[in-house]
Amino acid sequence: MLAEIITIGDELLIGQVIDTNSAFIAKELNKIGVSVFQITSVQDDKNHILQAFKDAEDRVDIIIITGGLGPTKDDITKKTIAEYFDDVLVRDASVLKNIESLWDRYIRQTLLQVNIDQSLVPSKATILMNKLGTAPGMWLEKQDKTFVSLPGVPYEMKTLIVNDVIPRLKAKYHCPFILHRTLIVYGLGESTLAARIESWEDALPKHIKLAYLPNIGKMRLRLSAKGFDENKIKEEVQEQINKVLPLIEKEFFGFEDEDGNEEAVVANRLTKKGKTLAIAESCTGGKLAQLFTAKAGASNYLKGGVVAYATQSKIDVLNVPEALIQEFSVVSAQVAEAMAQNVLKLYKSDFAIATTGNAGPTKGESNAEVGTVFIAIATKKGIFSEQFNFGNHREKVINKAVNKALEMLQKQIFKN
Amino acid sequence: MLAEIITIGDELLIGQVIDTNSAFIAKELNKIGVSVFQITSVQDDKNHILQAFKDAEDRVDIIIITGGLGPTKDDITKKTIAEYFDDVLVRDASVLKNIESLWDRYIRQTLLQVNIDQSLVPSKATILMNKLGTAPGMWLEKQDKTFVSLPGVPYEMKTLIVNDVIPRLKAKYHCPFILHRTLIVYGLGESTLAARIESWEDALPKHIKLAYLPNIGKMRLRLSAKGFDENKIKEEVQEQINKVLPLIEKEFFGFEDEDGNEEAVVANRLTKKGKTLAIAESCTGGKLAQLFTAKAGASNYLKGGVVAYATQSKIDVLNVPEALIQEFSVVSAQVAEAMAQNVLKLYKSDFAIATTGNAGPTKGESNAEVGTVFIAIATKKGIFSEQFNFGNHREKVINKAVNKALEMLQKQIFKN
Repeated sequence: MLAEIITIGDELLIGQVIDTNSAFIAKELNKIGVSVFQITSVQDDKNHILQAFKDAEDRVDIIIITGGLGPTKDDITKKTIAEYFDDVLVRDASVLKNIESLWDRYIRQTLLQVNIDQSLVPSKATILMNKLGTAPGMWLEKQDKTFVSLPGVPYEMKTLIVNDVIPRLKAKYHCPFILHRTLIVYGLGESTLAARIESWEDALPKHIKLAYLPNIGKMRLRLSAKGFDENKIKEEVQEQINKVLPLIEKEFFGFEDEDGNEEAVVANRLTKKGKTLAIAESCTGGKLAQLFTAKAGASNYLKGGVVAYATQSKIDVLNVPEALIQEFSVVSAQVAEAMAQNVLKLYKSDFAIATTGNAGPTKGESNAEVGTVFIAIATKKGIFSEQFNFGNHREKVINKAVNKALEMLQKQIFKN
Repeated sequence: MLAEIITIGDELLIGQVIDTNSAFIAKELNKIGVSVFQITSVQDDKNHILQAFKDAEDRVDIIIITGGLGPTKDDITKKTIAEYFDDVLVRDASVLKNIESLWDRYIRQTLLQVNIDQSLVPSKATILMNKLGTAPGMWLEKQDKTFVSLPGVPYEMKTLIVNDVIPRLKAKYHCPFILHRTLIVYGLGESTLAARIESWEDALPKHIKLAYLPNIGKMRLRLSAKGFDENKIKEEVQEQINKVLPLIEKEFFGFEDEDGNEEAVVANRLTKKGKTLAIAESCTGGKLAQLFTAKAGASNYLKGGVVAYATQSKIDVLNVPEALIQEFSVVSAQVAEAMAQNVLKLYKSDFAIATTGNAGPTKGESNAEVGTVFIAIATKKGIFSEQFNFGNHREKVINKAVNKALEMLQKQIFKN
């Protein structure tokens, strides 16, 4: 079963908005055995959208469309769908009722004609009620092909995908089982890893695909397989994992969770152990804390953090001795360790992590080279730090520091 | 001049990686007057890639390809390009030299055959040297069409786009000037805004396009125009802005910066005024601090922040009186205001912002409804807070809180 995702909106084509919807939809489709063959982003242009529908229909079985369903003149998806299906727009009473109720609860202004007109839908469409917004989802069929049109607002789209689209697709199509397992490997470059596992890779059964996903500071190795016998697929992939693990024994760190988030591995482990974490960030500027708090359940293990960005704040808030900073500079192992140790005490946590460095582009308050980062870990048993140089690109330095901090923390948590 | 961006990689189609490259490339192309007609993401599959090349060549003048240039077996872009151009791969001495030098400096392991083979390039390609990685960029021409193949690693791709691709495109094509101006509007829904400015919108000249970009808590109104006379385009758009501003006088906040970041507006204003900021975050968990520190220059105005996630940390780190929490609950105006006031003192800053709320999905330590958020602002002159309910979806609550905090902060900074 193949799908195509079509995202509609000029804002995507001029780079004003990053398309995060497609990755979410692709992941959810994958879970029920639907492979995404292509993702296509097109402008708010009728002829272009019609052409994209036609091309997609020739290629795949399921077409998921997002965007262009707002109430304003630049939103033309609905009219274009009606034209594609040789259909007319008719008023849907249940959608109008939903709009009126959202209006009553949140907007409390006069309901305008453009809002009322959001209840106009193609007569052939089945409505997927959008309780979070005024633009309804729509499900249309054409012979054995399915078209689904969803609003582009991420949380509205996500709710409709999970609650409506996925259950309906499962009911309609007999989908195979798709399995992805991703191994996290530290300390080996892409080519060194490939050389190490070459004979294993060459002997992989044809229906098991291997991908190398290099990421700053680590490699991910993804095994993918699909078929109708779920148990058989799982066994076959596990068998291959059992064969490759001895080849990367020292470098294998663990399996990526379903959402692919490194911090989830740390979060789960801390929660399981009933241990807590505090974070002191200079060059990573809140990014570590934010990664953890983005997900529900952070209050189970995260006490909090300090973003000690200015040098003075390291003294005022984290009680790093001024003399230490003067002797060793603000970007130093000594300061990183003091930050970690003091944030551990301040938050009364079991683990603490601290970053201090120079992300660039200029040298700033220390004389450290751009890219120099010290990361320290404190536990109740002790403290240590490591020095890195992550190059001279700000985004790269911050991301590498975050990844490295997570790696050091993971290792420490698994050890303790 | 039209372009298409083709991003290659199974990881995009299974949703493991979000395609952030396309938005960056689109933005850069726009700046030199090249419009992106379509963005297409395809799998690491030879026939699919060949088809995508052909389709794109029929549609546009410039085809920018990213991904699939690594050293491993799943990277097939280079071979596929050679096949498409009826070409062969030949060794490029300068690329090999670059690989060897990167290897010497960063890897310090034996150079493997797969790495050496990254210096194999289509004989018809002009090399765009990638000093940050081993996969070279490649520029190929076919009559008046241009194909550019770039590595998928974001910072490598970005450096090649800015330093090589854009200057070459500017030299080759006579491009029009493209102007986007985006107005930030608070406090009006999409439809209310549309009704308010309807007669203005209907009278817009045909070559000036208008788009409504709803975002949690605010609207963005984008005017776009293109033409060969830069001054004329600028004047015409300014003329339309002058006409619309009186219609949204109270709700217009300002213009979005080139990168579309709200926090940049705050950052620029603080830097200009020589004022400083501190942040106390509970429910936003570091996201506010991280937004500011992601960009160079944060040290000019950001003192730092506290992520006071656990209730106890609000007491221990931010000195919020325990009695206050007991009396009013941890999610309350009183606690938000105490957090803002105390973080202002702790960091000795001119402005402070604090968030406390319940992002869900469960009620947590307070009894506040999921979605309840208090945001407080402290200045040396005083303190105030507002209460919000941002609904019952964690991601939405956090994002709305961040946007609202930025809005309140902007207003306050512009006032003071």
